[in-house]
Amino acid sequence: MTSPHHSDLSAHIARGLSDLAEFVAIESVSAQGRMLPEAAAYVTRLLEAEGFTVREYPGTVAPVLVAEAGSGPTTLLIYNHYDVQPEDPTELWDSPPFALTEREGRLYARGVSDDKGEFISRLAAVRAVRERHGGQLPLRIRWLLEGEEEVGSPSLDAFVEAHADELRADGCWWEFGSITPEGRPVASLGLKGVMCVELRCRVADSDLHSSLGAVIDNPLYRLARAVATLRDDTGRVTIPGFHDAVRDPSPADLAAIATIPGDGQAVRDTYGVTRPLATGPDYFRRTNLLPVVNVNGWSGGYQGEGSKTVLPAHGSVKLDFRLVPDQNPEQILALLRAHLDTQGLSDVEVVELESHQKPARADAGHPFVVACLEAAREAHGLEPIIHPSSAASGPMSPFNEFLGVPCVAMGIGNLGGRIHAPNENILKVHFEKGVAFGVALLERLGRGL
Amino acid sequence: MTSPHHSDLSAHIARGLSDLAEFVAIESVSAQGRMLPEAAAYVTRLLEAEGFTVREYPGTVAPVLVAEAGSGPTTLLIYNHYDVQPEDPTELWDSPPFALTEREGRLYARGVSDDKGEFISRLAAVRAVRERHGGQLPLRIRWLLEGEEEVGSPSLDAFVEAHADELRADGCWWEFGSITPEGRPVASLGLKGVMCVELRCRVADSDLHSSLGAVIDNPLYRLARAVATLRDDTGRVTIPGFHDAVRDPSPADLAAIATIPGDGQAVRDTYGVTRPLATGPDYFRRTNLLPVVNVNGWSGGYQGEGSKTVLPAHGSVKLDFRLVPDQNPEQILALLRAHLDTQGLSDVEVVELESHQKPARADAGHPFVVACLEAAREAHGLEPIIHPSSAASGPMSPFNEFLGVPCVAMGIGNLGGRIHAPNENILKVHFEKGVAFGVALLERLGRGL
Repeated sequence: MTSPHHSDLSAHIARGLSDLAEFVAIESVSAQGRMLPEAAAYVTRLLEAEGFTVREYPGTVAPVLVAEAGSGPTTLLIYNHYDVQPEDPTELWDSPPFALTEREGRLYARGVSDDKGEFISRLAAVRAVRERHGGQLPLRIRWLLEGEEEVGSPSLDAFVEAHADELRADGCWWEFGSITPEGRPVASLGLKGVMCVELRCRVADSDLHSSLGAVIDNPLYRLARAVATLRDDTGRVTIPGFHDAVRDPSPADLAAIATIPGDGQAVRDTYGVTRPLATGPDYFRRTNLLPVVNVNGWSGGYQGEGSKTVLPAHGSVKLDFRLVPDQNPEQILALLRAHLDTQGLSDVEVVELESHQKPARADAGHPFVVACLEAAREAHGLEPIIHPSSAASGPMSPFNEFLGVPCVAMGIGNLGGRIHAPNENILKVHFEKGVAFGVALLERLGRGL
Repeated sequence: MTSPHHSDLSAHIARGLSDLAEFVAIESVSAQGRMLPEAAAYVTRLLEAEGFTVREYPGTVAPVLVAEAGSGPTTLLIYNHYDVQPEDPTELWDSPPFALTEREGRLYARGVSDDKGEFISRLAAVRAVRERHGGQLPLRIRWLLEGEEEVGSPSLDAFVEAHADELRADGCWWEFGSITPEGRPVASLGLKGVMCVELRCRVADSDLHSSLGAVIDNPLYRLARAVATLRDDTGRVTIPGFHDAVRDPSPADLAAIATIPGDGQAVRDTYGVTRPLATGPDYFRRTNLLPVVNVNGWSGGYQGEGSKTVLPAHGSVKLDFRLVPDQNPEQILALLRAHLDTQGLSDVEVVELESHQKPARADAGHPFVVACLEAAREAHGLEPIIHPSSAASGPMSPFNEFLGVPCVAMGIGNLGGRIHAPNENILKVHFEKGVAFGVALLERLGRGL
């Protein structure tokens, strides 16, 4: 068996691009309940054509699919989703959002990156590997596809727990990933947890004239004081006990972080950042390992032009907490409540806004991770960049928790990919590299961990 | 000369109510530049009919009038305004806002309390006194009327300074005042100063994903920390130097405050207040004497339903400071800036939102004040309630500063008078009492201080 070359894969890449054009044309917008059964049926048809048995389960707003094929020394779980974000504002698209369009080496469409391009590039790799192995796969693939990822994966946690036997594997290939402008593949081995809460305070039934501020408390002051006690000026959360459960990073994690190129200057330049909390080597240590609290917005009182001397009756502040292993959102919520009480802020109400996500992280030294990195080196010809954790969040923790598998996020996204925004795109060459990486990974896993 | 009785005044009261109906029909809304010359001309005609010479000066949006009549041992300056607040929301009025309407002992119209009813009740008293004195006045009255009070009196400060000789007097009868449900007249001898500022903070050119909160500062945290350092949980301002210029209240001030009935329970009941800062004897000490900072509102980031994991690029907080003698707004602004710098918050910008007003207060023991209280006892037959300062603000300080006169706010408002709101009203009996008080005051001052 030789390593795959693009020349070997051109037919599969061409067929994959044809599939991708069909797939993005199915407007599977989960937030609007559009065309989700059609997208599930399309995925099912493609997978069954490659010898997969596909089981369909009810989700909250869209079916959950579990496909299985092949046998061998290794079982690979692949997680993707067939739903997409809404396309609006449509007028900001330079080509129709649900028509795959190529311009200057890029392919544009809603979902072309997140997540239909990822799925199709992997499917193309499966076809190539089957062809090389006489219609068989040298490993067992279990493929989990949901249609609710863009609405917060409301069914996924319970589904993974309930179907653990059906999903058991040696490792999970996560739904996304990216490639740098220089062509280096980026692997993320974890995601931060997230918990969104609102702080609320009320001092009266209705707004009052601000001259009464001499004798009646101010809800925005109460909330400001609450926010000011949550972190310090360095960004470190100051809620007592908040850091107690934080897992020490492994030597492999620290080594990986130390070799990530750059220090976030591109982000600072892109957004005109005037108050960075970290530059230099501290930058990626923070994005990977630091749990933080963010103020997302606040409301209360007068917000128009000029002044209005009002004492607001009530106000609110929206926060999100980004958590790292092994912080538990429910425990953090309890610590927050206790902290506010200790600070004399028992009148500040804490309301969790939606279901939280737990943090997840795989050790960079895990054999499955090592195999993924080997395949990446082979396919891309460059050293992968390893993030022990993304700074962002997602529904990864049930895979760690209920299946005991590490998750590796590698894929075909790019920094200018505009996922969730108009003109979502991938580089065509990244799609090709993605197929090659898929082939290398399946072959590598077919030889055992 | 006997003290006035209602029976003596009935013809003047009736004529005053007829004038008042004409006056409120002139829709002199200064915020919208409506019918201001018409209102000035109406006032001029009424005053000239009573022997006043009236000089008209240009203001910022409406003429300033200075009328003068009479001679005697005392010169009284009266300050009123002929403009009113906008009438909207019109649909919440139970009768047309610019038609004087009587219902159950109350008179309703925009401006019927603030300030046209005050002016007309005083004019009716002038007529009654002239009638008693053979067409003469036993004192000199200088009457300053502006048409810009409801838009912040932009011309008044400079006008009083420039026309100090023309306005010189022994004391000033301020434009408003109130009477309790029990019929006790309320005198306010001062107003707090006010300064409105906005704190602003920006960390980037555009909003970012909140996962970047690990490495980029949060403007709402910065602003929350700024707000939290401005006061303590008791409501005391904690800006270093803030209290240095606060004038010690006089023994007469403290004695007056100690005899104000109640402790604000009615306010707390009316507004459903759950977080009072003061009850009992401390209540009126604070409303009269305590300088405070109020958070009027804040904006920044996501304010809709549910959560959005955004790191806002910028945010702002609106504040007002209520100041007491001899705090100087410009000095307070400098102290605020220095305080934020000391707190490591140099990036938090301070913007003054509009022109400030300085605090003003007359000593409760001043002979002019004593004379006003004597007249009030005579007209109302009950002991006046004396507030050395209102909790609210207004353009009183130039009268103290450039004319050296004490200002006494006594008038015909009531706690349910809904000034600035739909269904603005006065009690008809308060209008009658106001005429009687005016007669008593002019007679008292005609006998010398």
